[in-house]
Amino acid sequence: MPYAIGVDLGGTHTKAALVSDDGAMLKTVKGDTPADSGPAAVLARIAELVERVMEALPEGETVGGIGVGAPGPVSRDRATVLRPPNLPGWKDVRLPDALADHLAGSVRQRMAQDAVILAENDANVAALGSAFYGAGEPYPSFVMVTLGTGVGGAIIHENRLFRGASGAAGEIGHMTIDYEGPYARSGVAGALEAYLGHKFLTRHARYQLLTRPTCLHEMTEADLADLDPVTLHRAAMGGDPAALEFFAWAGHKLGVALGAIVNLLDIRTFVIGGGVSAAGDVLLDPVRNAIPRYVMPGMRSGITVLRETRGNAVAVQGAARLVFEHAEDRA
Amino acid sequence: MPYAIGVDLGGTHTKAALVSDDGAMLKTVKGDTPADSGPAAVLARIAELVERVMEALPEGETVGGIGVGAPGPVSRDRATVLRPPNLPGWKDVRLPDALADHLAGSVRQRMAQDAVILAENDANVAALGSAFYGAGEPYPSFVMVTLGTGVGGAIIHENRLFRGASGAAGEIGHMTIDYEGPYARSGVAGALEAYLGHKFLTRHARYQLLTRPTCLHEMTEADLADLDPVTLHRAAMGGDPAALEFFAWAGHKLGVALGAIVNLLDIRTFVIGGGVSAAGDVLLDPVRNAIPRYVMPGMRSGITVLRETRGNAVAVQGAARLVFEHAEDRA
Repeated sequence: MPYAIGVDLGGTHTKAALVSDDGAMLKTVKGDTPADSGPAAVLARIAELVERVMEALPEGETVGGIGVGAPGPVSRDRATVLRPPNLPGWKDVRLPDALADHLAGSVRQRMAQDAVILAENDANVAALGSAFYGAGEPYPSFVMVTLGTGVGGAIIHENRLFRGASGAAGEIGHMTIDYEGPYARSGVAGALEAYLGHKFLTRHARYQLLTRPTCLHEMTEADLADLDPVTLHRAAMGGDPAALEFFAWAGHKLGVALGAIVNLLDIRTFVIGGGVSAAGDVLLDPVRNAIPRYVMPGMRSGITVLRETRGNAVAVQGAARLVFEHAEDRA
Repeated sequence: MPYAIGVDLGGTHTKAALVSDDGAMLKTVKGDTPADSGPAAVLARIAELVERVMEALPEGETVGGIGVGAPGPVSRDRATVLRPPNLPGWKDVRLPDALADHLAGSVRQRMAQDAVILAENDANVAALGSAFYGAGEPYPSFVMVTLGTGVGGAIIHENRLFRGASGAAGEIGHMTIDYEGPYARSGVAGALEAYLGHKFLTRHARYQLLTRPTCLHEMTEADLADLDPVTLHRAAMGGDPAALEFFAWAGHKLGVALGAIVNLLDIRTFVIGGGVSAAGDVLLDPVRNAIPRYVMPGMRSGITVLRETRGNAVAVQGAARLVFEHAEDRA
């Protein structure tokens, strides 16, 4: 049974798991990411987590490698973490060398002779995990959208990541749906993130709900200033018409972008993850309603919008999958 | 030297060529498409054109097959022409059987034993031709956009067509750039075609230029009612500020859509063909200016927008390429 270690490197927390190639996680650990202390401290933390999950490796077995899902862009050869936005001081860190230097001798002894260390953008890794071990598993091709602080995404085509020319494909949050629309942080007018990114979403909600009768006035303080997606969702689940209408507005925006993607790629399955997706059908039904209106007539059938509910798990599983895929390609 | 016959089946004309796998066209012929007489008459015309180009086949050689670029959607197995919008009476025509029935005995004798008949959507075929024998040749991955009556497109990824789940990928004209924008024929609000499709383009031009001082009032009759892209282009080349401004408006709209594509696919090369693209840099410079404004900061470098000037040739070459590719895959 092949084994690999998957690492989900985040700006605040890092998770690692020992994974077998059927996706089973033999041991999972989590630690803080000492982001402010620079790359060496972060790499030491990863090495420590790797050492801990390695304890679960069955006697006599070896590990095929370590896959790391990293925030921000990664080089096309999966070696270099370029400039992660949430990891100060990182600039073109070559992970196979940099991480290997921190691995304990006991860990190195249990790595296979041809073991690899591979990095990949975290949204891509999450999609790979979903494709092999999550909600995307039944679908050879789908587009994943992650609704979090930003809006991320990835394309799975025939069970492989579609990576594009430099490995940066899937930046769905920067696609415009209105060329004169509101500006996202990227400076792109009408970018999807300018509607559905966490901060933008709550700001739009506040503007739209401030002068309307809604239970949200009682659920929040100071004129909805502390509104967040969880509170909005709770109000919608309680049947609050204004909250429901707001999710319909937000879902419509996501549906517009996904409709454009159907026309371009003829991929009709979407897997939605990330914190905001916890709103479930209150958000996703409006998405499902909107998509066909932005798709040419011949391509409106078979459109499926699912939720990825195993967000944390698929991230480490997908990171481990990088190693298994590499071994399959080599074979 | 492998040979194939490429056929470009259009609503009004059909072209065919005998092509060798280096792209050389040994003989090219063209005929009317008897579209109103139904599928049998059209298939007979194709068979006749095939017979004529076969005359150029060198003594002792055989032809590996016939590739046909057809308007509208084609089944994923490249056998069935589904419902071409400009060919009345066609509905799910299985081309390998239907065309073979019409081929002359002299043609069949010179087809290889394992010869194939393959169909593919005409926009895809044009992109394939551009990728191997046209402006796209230096680029392993690019997106082709065809600006004609409608706005078509295709994706070439690592020298292959990216076809999507059912083979319908590349419908760029139906991507929205403004979810509350003008309606295209498809019913999609703000679809690219609602700005750049031939009829829409001239209508927008008329609205924008009607009350402005421009030489177009003298170049056209009856309040710009007979305005067309060629006249617009002539005015712009003469330095008419209003015509130049109109092309800047139109190019901006195309750039918005191409920017969205860069974010999604990380493909940064675009090849623009079709009648309207004859406007050249008057249209394409505004496209080049607009794209980066709709792309996230990290992906704005290396963006290239080219013209495919060999439109007719790459269509038949691309159709022949279907046959060569099929043979390579089988080998």
